[in-house]
Amino acid sequence: MLGVTLGATIQGRAHKMGAMTTSPDYSAASSPSELFFENFRRHSSGVAIVTLRKSSGDPTGFTATSVTSLSAVPPRATFNMSQFASSYPAIRSSEHLLIHFLTSDHVELATQFSGDSAGRFAGIDLLDGPEGLPLIPGTAGYVVGKIVARHETGDAVTVVVEIVDGGLGQRGEGLVYQEKSYRAAASLD
Amino acid sequence: MLGVTLGATIQGRAHKMGAMTTSPDYSAASSPSELFFENFRRHSSGVAIVTLRKSSGDPTGFTATSVTSLSAVPPRATFNMSQFASSYPAIRSSEHLLIHFLTSDHVELATQFSGDSAGRFAGIDLLDGPEGLPLIPGTAGYVVGKIVARHETGDAVTVVVEIVDGGLGQRGEGLVYQEKSYRAAASLD
Repeated sequence: MLGVTLGATIQGRAHKMGAMTTSPDYSAASSPSELFFENFRRHSSGVAIVTLRKSSGDPTGFTATSVTSLSAVPPRATFNMSQFASSYPAIRSSEHLLIHFLTSDHVELATQFSGDSAGRFAGIDLLDGPEGLPLIPGTAGYVVGKIVARHETGDAVTVVVEIVDGGLGQRGEGLVYQEKSYRAAASLD
Repeated sequence: MLGVTLGATIQGRAHKMGAMTTSPDYSAASSPSELFFENFRRHSSGVAIVTLRKSSGDPTGFTATSVTSLSAVPPRATFNMSQFASSYPAIRSSEHLLIHFLTSDHVELATQFSGDSAGRFAGIDLLDGPEGLPLIPGTAGYVVGKIVARHETGDAVTVVVEIVDGGLGQRGEGLVYQEKSYRAAASLD
């Protein structure tokens, strides 16, 4: 306990001088930007695919590693994206979209939907989803999200959707992205 | 291809009648609420711990499964929570908080910080983090988030933070939550 108290005092001083925290547990980094990248590389994200239609009627979509639930009552979720993303014009002008959930069997699909936007739907026999939305077959499940808010923060946006419909597919180990690679949410037992 | 086209036509009709999507790939559910729960059970979330100080100076915090990056320039992230959460009064009145990133070695810590709010810091020799924030030792890393927005949607809130400081700990397989249990982000190789 003495060691901790001393350490805290020293760190308290260091911070007053504007230095980074030092402790045996943590090393510093050169900038907030590096701290952001290095820490979020350590953080796992569940992988999903968002699809919708452009005003032309063509399907558009992308691999999203930021889909997260917001509230259960009413059932709502969020995801984050850049306003410069190829799908954002459609997100801005649409009322509904699909979120597909992936398992570790869907690495190829996730890779395809994070690649060149022109080839994302290549070879996929789309189903006609609710609201005419482009439904990818064979995922772990999907929800129809009605867009209820788009919170802009700089060039980024947090899209809030309310779940109004959907379907359930095969369960499996969730597809996860960490340290720049796809992984599987494996049991700890 | 014919089967898909036919299926699409039938589903298109079904939707006009307000029915759920049916296909060999997906089964229906009884309500949007059930679709929300069943799909988000299939979805993996990276696990983190948020800490900060109450106006009394006491530490407060919680296990967060919704931490996700928002933009790299500037470095920003979001997480979602209920406005009824025990830590929300502190979030509402604070300028800074810490986000700790966890590996599969931190199941006990994640469990402790999602349990009874009175016992969350029991047995933890807190370090004195930047801005006097309660820093948990031994995690995979942490960032200091300056709160730049709180977007309320009903009873829930999306908190937007800008990363202004932090530290780096030991890497490992990320701690993930799926199907109501903790898991590890395991390599697919």
